[in-house]
Amino acid sequence: MLRIAYMRTLSFFYSLGDLFSKTIPIIKVEPEDLFQGHKEALFFSCGAYSVTCVVKTARTIAFKPLAVYYLLLSYGSKIMTTQTKKTTLASAMPDVQAADDYRQIAIDKVGVKDITYPISLHCPATGNVQHTVAKVNMYVSLPHDQKGTHMSRFLEVLNKHREQIRSDQIMSICADIRDRLEAPEAHLQLTFPYFIHKKAPVTQSPGMLDIQVTFDATAGDKNEFIMSVKVPGKSLCPCSKEISAYGAHNQRCEIEARVRFTAGKMMWIEELFDIVEKAASSPVFSVLKRPDEKWVTETAFDNPKFVEDIVRDLAIMLDNEDRICWYQITSENFESIHNHNAYAYIEKDKDECCE
Amino acid sequence: MLRIAYMRTLSFFYSLGDLFSKTIPIIKVEPEDLFQGHKEALFFSCGAYSVTCVVKTARTIAFKPLAVYYLLLSYGSKIMTTQTKKTTLASAMPDVQAADDYRQIAIDKVGVKDITYPISLHCPATGNVQHTVAKVNMYVSLPHDQKGTHMSRFLEVLNKHREQIRSDQIMSICADIRDRLEAPEAHLQLTFPYFIHKKAPVTQSPGMLDIQVTFDATAGDKNEFIMSVKVPGKSLCPCSKEISAYGAHNQRCEIEARVRFTAGKMMWIEELFDIVEKAASSPVFSVLKRPDEKWVTETAFDNPKFVEDIVRDLAIMLDNEDRICWYQITSENFESIHNHNAYAYIEKDKDECCE
Amino acid sequence: MLRIAYMRTLSFFYSLGDLFSKTIPIIKVEPEDLFQGHKEALFFSCGAYSVTCVVKTARTIAFKPLAVYYLLLSYGSKIMTTQTKKTTLASAMPDVQAADDYRQIAIDKVGVKDITYPISLHCPATGNVQHTVAKVNMYVSLPHDQKGTHMSRFLEVLNKHREQIRSDQIMSICADIRDRLEAPEAHLQLTFPYFIHKKAPVTQSPGMLDIQVTFDATAGDKNEFIMSVKVPGKSLCPCSKEISAYGAHNQRCEIEARVRFTAGKMMWIEELFDIVEKAASSPVFSVLKRPDEKWVTETAFDNPKFVEDIVRDLAIMLDNEDRICWYQITSENFESIHNHNAYAYIEKDKDECCE
Amino acid sequence: MLRIAYMRTLSFFYSLGDLFSKTIPIIKVEPEDLFQGHKEALFFSCGAYSVTCVVKTARTIAFKPLAVYYLLLSYGSKIMTTQTKKTTLASAMPDVQAADDYRQIAIDKVGVKDITYPISLHCPATGNVQHTVAKVNMYVSLPHDQKGTHMSRFLEVLNKHREQIRSDQIMSICADIRDRLEAPEAHLQLTFPYFIHKKAPVTQSPGMLDIQVTFDATAGDKNEFIMSVKVPGKSLCPCSKEISAYGAHNQRCEIEARVRFTAGKMMWIEELFDIVEKAASSPVFSVLKRPDEKWVTETAFDNPKFVEDIVRDLAIMLDNEDRICWYQITSENFESIHNHNAYAYIEKDKDECCE
Repeated sequence: MLRIAYMRTLSFFYSLGDLFSKTIPIIKVEPEDLFQGHKEALFFSCGAYSVTCVVKTARTIAFKPLAVYYLLLSYGSKIMTTQTKKTTLASAMPDVQAADDYRQIAIDKVGVKDITYPISLHCPATGNVQHTVAKVNMYVSLPHDQKGTHMSRFLEVLNKHREQIRSDQIMSICADIRDRLEAPEAHLQLTFPYFIHKKAPVTQSPGMLDIQVTFDATAGDKNEFIMSVKVPGKSLCPCSKEISAYGAHNQRCEIEARVRFTAGKMMWIEELFDIVEKAASSPVFSVLKRPDEKWVTETAFDNPKFVEDIVRDLAIMLDNEDRICWYQITSENFESIHNHNAYAYIEKDKDECCE
Repeated sequence: MLRIAYMRTLSFFYSLGDLFSKTIPIIKVEPEDLFQGHKEALFFSCGAYSVTCVVKTARTIAFKPLAVYYLLLSYGSKIMTTQTKKTTLASAMPDVQAADDYRQIAIDKVGVKDITYPISLHCPATGNVQHTVAKVNMYVSLPHDQKGTHMSRFLEVLNKHREQIRSDQIMSICADIRDRLEAPEAHLQLTFPYFIHKKAPVTQSPGMLDIQVTFDATAGDKNEFIMSVKVPGKSLCPCSKEISAYGAHNQRCEIEARVRFTAGKMMWIEELFDIVEKAASSPVFSVLKRPDEKWVTETAFDNPKFVEDIVRDLAIMLDNEDRICWYQITSENFESIHNHNAYAYIEKDKDECCE
Repeated sequence: MLRIAYMRTLSFFYSLGDLFSKTIPIIKVEPEDLFQGHKEALFFSCGAYSVTCVVKTARTIAFKPLAVYYLLLSYGSKIMTTQTKKTTLASAMPDVQAADDYRQIAIDKVGVKDITYPISLHCPATGNVQHTVAKVNMYVSLPHDQKGTHMSRFLEVLNKHREQIRSDQIMSICADIRDRLEAPEAHLQLTFPYFIHKKAPVTQSPGMLDIQVTFDATAGDKNEFIMSVKVPGKSLCPCSKEISAYGAHNQRCEIEARVRFTAGKMMWIEELFDIVEKAASSPVFSVLKRPDEKWVTETAFDNPKFVEDIVRDLAIMLDNEDRICWYQITSENFESIHNHNAYAYIEKDKDECCE
Repeated sequence: MLRIAYMRTLSFFYSLGDLFSKTIPIIKVEPEDLFQGHKEALFFSCGAYSVTCVVKTARTIAFKPLAVYYLLLSYGSKIMTTQTKKTTLASAMPDVQAADDYRQIAIDKVGVKDITYPISLHCPATGNVQHTVAKVNMYVSLPHDQKGTHMSRFLEVLNKHREQIRSDQIMSICADIRDRLEAPEAHLQLTFPYFIHKKAPVTQSPGMLDIQVTFDATAGDKNEFIMSVKVPGKSLCPCSKEISAYGAHNQRCEIEARVRFTAGKMMWIEELFDIVEKAASSPVFSVLKRPDEKWVTETAFDNPKFVEDIVRDLAIMLDNEDRICWYQITSENFESIHNHNAYAYIEKDKDECCE
C-alpha cells in the first residue's frame, strides 16, 4: 500500500516552494492518478512538470491549501535535500496547529500539564499577599475541525496573570485563556501549598500550617469554579478507644473539601479551611510546646471519630453553609495500626446549584 | 457548654456494668422517656441510684439502647478507674461500627485504600497466569442510619480471591464485598503493573513491557466494570519535524484508555493494549538492539503526532470497536523541549451503553 | 513477667501529687515492696514526705528525680482517676526529652523531616529576592546520654530565618540550629523549586524555567555546605542518529550537580545552573514560539549525547571551575524508546577540598 | 566558529560509502581544506581509495577508523540525500558505544534505571517462592577510554535471572552483569514489596503485611551486598503520654534497616524483618478484628517510644546480631500532631566488616 506520511509530503512541498521561486508554472493536478482512488487522499492541481500533491493518508492529516506554498509535490523521482531548502523558507514556517483536521473528533481538553510556577495570591478581604508555587494545568476544548492548539499561548497568559491571582477573579483569567486560545471552553487548574498562620492552642507559639489548595475553573458556555482545600488533621478511633483499657490509636488524616459556590457568593480559603479543620478529632500544628501537645492529645481523645464521622460531620457543616451549593468531601486516614488507609467520600449537589 | 463525648459516655456504661456485677438493682430504664426528643444532649434519670445518661452531643453520636448494657451512667460524682473494669467486659466488647447513626447522612464510599497486595491474574482465553502486585481500594456505600463499616472484612474478601483474579469475573468479587459487608453498593479498584511479552521489532529479542492496568468495579443497583490500561509510547512532534531543517523533538508519552464494555462483551487486557499502543508515533520496548532502535527512530519520524492526534486516532479506533460502549482517553506527553507536559482528553458515551 | 513501663510509673506519681496537694502524709515508701525486687527496677531514697523513685526496664527509660513532683508512687492498690488530677500538675509538666538515656547509643541525626515551608531567597550579588516553597529537613546529632531532642525548636529557628535565606549565609542558620538545640552537630536541608528567567532562543519570548535546588548544610566539628541543582534538559541519542536514515530519538533528561565549594569561594545558583544546562544536547524552555522550537530541535540534533557524554562533559566543565572542590553529578534520561531510564553518575573529590 | 558535530561527519561518511559502492576513485583528500585548519580537527592518513578521517570538536567525540566504512568525508560541497544511502549500510551499522572516548573521564555508574520487572524470589531455607514486582537499577563502571555501555544487555541479563532471584545468590547475578557488560564493576539494585504472612495477635486471623525490601549488590574489585527492609510500625509518643491526662498521640512509622552481613553469613528477609519490627511501639497488621485492635492499642500504649528510642532499640538489637557487620537505620514517624515527620538515623560499622 502506498502510504505517504503527511510530514513527508509537506517536506516535498518545500521542494515545490523552491520550484515556485523559480517560477515554474503548475498547470494541473490529477490527484486520482496519484493516489489511485484512495478515498482519504486529497489532491491539488498541477501540470506540465509532473507536480503531484498528496494531502492526507490513513494515519495522518488533511491539509487545506491555505496558499500555494502549502502544496505538496512529488517531482518525478527526484528528491532534493530538504535541508538547505527549508532554511530559505523559514519566513514561511507553516502553522501546523492552525490547519484543519478531517477526523471529525472534537477534543474535550487539550493543553499543558504539570507546569511548576511561582504565583502571588491576593486576598482582597484582608489585603494580604501570599507567595507560593503552583502546579498548573491549562486546557481548552478543540472543535472537531481544528488540527491543534497553540501550547505556547497558555504560558503567555499564565505569565501575564501570575503576580495577581485572586480567588474571586480566577474566572477572568480562565476567560482570558479561552479568548487568547480562541477556544469554546477553557480550563485552569492551580494547585499550591497555602500557609495558614496558626498559633499553638495553649502557648500561642506562632507557626504556619501548610494546606493544599486547588482552584479549578472552567470558562465557556458554562462557567464553573471549584475551590478545594486539603487539610491535615488528627483522627482518633472510637472503636479502639472504646474496646481498649487505655489509649486509642490515632493518626494523621487528610480531609479534602471540593466546593462550588452559590451564584454571587464566595468564601476565602481561610474560611473554608476553618470549617474543614473542625471535622477532625483534633487540629494539627507546626509548632507545639508541651502544654500544646497535651492539649492536642486530650482534645483528640475527647473527640474520637471514625473516617465516617469525619465526612458526616463535615457534610453537616457544609450543608449549613449557604454560600456552598455543591461539595465533594473525603477523608483519608493513615491508619497507625495498618499499612493501608481508611477512606470515606460524600458528594452532594444542593438544588440551588451555581450557574 | 456541656460536651460529653460519646466514648466517654460508653465508658460510663462500663462503670454501670461494674455496678451490675455488684448486683445493684436498676429499677427501670425507659429509653423513650429518656430521649424525649431533645435534639442534642439527652439525659435520662433512672431510679433510686441516680443514674444519668448522656447520649448525644453536637459532635458525636446518638446511641440506641440496644440492651440494658448499653445504658450510660453517671454515678453521682464518683468515677471508677476504667482500666480494671473494662477488662472484665472484654467478652462484651461493643460493636461500635454496628451502632446506629443519627446524622441522617449517607456515605457514598467508605472503606480501605492503598492496600499493597500480591495477586494472580488468570486469563481464561489463554490459560496464562500472571503474578503481580496491586494497589487495592475497596469501598461500600453506607446508609444514613448506620454508624460505620467493618474494615477488616474487606481484607478478608480480598484474601479469599487474590489467587484467582479474572477480568471477566471481577464483578463477582465485587458482589462478594457487597454481600460480606451487607452494603447496598460495593466498589473494587485494582491497579497493577501488567507485563506484555513483546519481541523487538527487527531482531525479535524478547522483552517485557510494563503497562499499568486498573479494574474498577461497582456492584449494586447498577453494576459497572471499567477497565483501564496506561501504555507508554513515543510521540514525535509534527510541528517540530515540519519547521526544522532536520530532526524532530520526540519523547515518551503515556496513553490511557478507560473503557466500559457493551453488555455481554469483554476484551482481554492484551486486546485493549494492542489498540492503545497503535495510537503512538511508535511503540516502545524494553530490549532494543541497534537495528531495532533504528526501526523505532524511523517509525516515529514517519508517523509524527501531536497529543491531539494521539487521542483522536485512539478515539477512532475505539469508535470502531463494538465491544466498547464508553471510553475516556488521555495522552500525556513528557515534552522534551519543555519542563512541563502536553495533555489531551476525550470522553465518549456511545448510546448503546452497558447495563 | 512483671513489666512496669516508665510512663505507667510516672502516672502513679500524679496520684501522689494529688495526695500531696491534699497534704496527706506519706509515712513511708518501700520501693522494694512496690516493685517486688524486680531486677530492672532501680530506686532512690525517699524521705518521710518525699518519695523519689526511678524505674527502668529494658525497653524504657531511666528518669532523674528532677524535683519532688517527679516521684513515682504506687499508693497501695488504689488508683485514682488520673484525669482531673493531672490538670493540676500542668505547670510541673515533665520534660521527658531532657532526661538521661541509659542505652549508650549516640544518634547521628534526629529531627524533623518533610516540612513544607515558604522561604524568601536573597541574592546579594543581584539584590533580587525570590519567593518559593521549600521542603525542609532539620536534624541534630544526639549524644549517647541524652534521651531526646526538642522538636519544636527546629521550627522556631526556621521561622526566624525563613524570610532571609541567602546561599552565602546558610551556614550561620545551621549554626543557629546547633546552638538552639544545644547539639554537637546540626544539619539543614532545603529543597525548593527555583525559577530561572530565560528568554526563548530566537523570539526572545520571556519565560521561567523551574529547576530544583538543594542546600545541604552541616555545622559542627566539620562545617560543610553542598549546593545542588537539578536541571531539565534535552538529550538526543548519538547512536539513534547515526544508525537511522532520518531523525533520532530524544527525550527530556534531568541533570544534577551536587557541589562543594573551595574554601572562601561561592557560586550563585544561576552560575551553577548555567554550567549544568550546557551539558545537555539542548536547553529546554517554558515558552517556545515556532522559530524557537526549530532552534531547539536543530540544536539537539547537532549536538547528540549519550547519558555518558552528558556527565563527562559536565565533569570537564566542573573540573575547570576552581570555585568547586568536589562534585557528584548524574544524568537521568527518560528514554523515549523505552519505559525505563538511562542513568550515569560521576563523583570527584579534587584534592584541595574544602574545610 | 566552525563547529562540526561528530554525527554530521559520520553522515558525510555515508555519502563516501555510497561513492565507494560506485567505485568512484577519490584521488585525494585534503582535510586541511575541509576543516580549514580548525585546531580541534584531527586527520588520519588517506590512500588513493581509502580516506580515513576523524574529526573531533570540544563537545563531541573522536572516532577510530574501525573499517573503511567508517571514513569521514566532505565531498566538495555536494551532499547526497542520506535517506536511501543509509539503508544500504544497515549491515555495517556502526557500534557507536564501542568506540573510544578521548575525554579521559571514567564514569562511576552508568546503566538503566527504574525498570519495572516481575521477579520470583526463592528462599532456600523454606523452599518458598514469592512472586513480586521489582523496581530495578543496573549499572556498570565505565573506563575513561570507552565511549559508552550497551544498555540492552542489562535487560538481557535481568531477563535471564528474573525467575530465580535468591538473596544468597544475588552476587552471582551481579557478577553476570559485570561479565556480560565487560565492565570492571557492576551494580544491581532490586527494590520490591515483600509480603510477610502474619496472623492477628489475638484472633489469629491470617493476613499479609507488605514491607519494602532492597537488594543492593556490587561486584568488582570489592564485592558488597546490602540488604534493606523498610517496615511499617506504630509509634506512640512518651512525652504525649506523660503530660496528658489520658491518651497519647501515636502514628504509623516506617523503620528501615540497611545491613551488610559478616563474611560467610546471611540472614533471610524474614529474620531481619522480625528484628526491625520489634523496634516499634507496636507491630501493625493487615487484618485486625476487635480483640486484635484492643491488643495493638494497648501494646503501643504500654510501650511508648520516641523516634530516638526506636533507632536506639534497633541499634542494640543489631549490635547483638553477629551476622551483621554494618548497618544504617532510620525511623520516620508520620506525626499525627503535625503535618511533618520526625526522623532519626544511626550508622554503625562494626570492625569485623565484610570483605
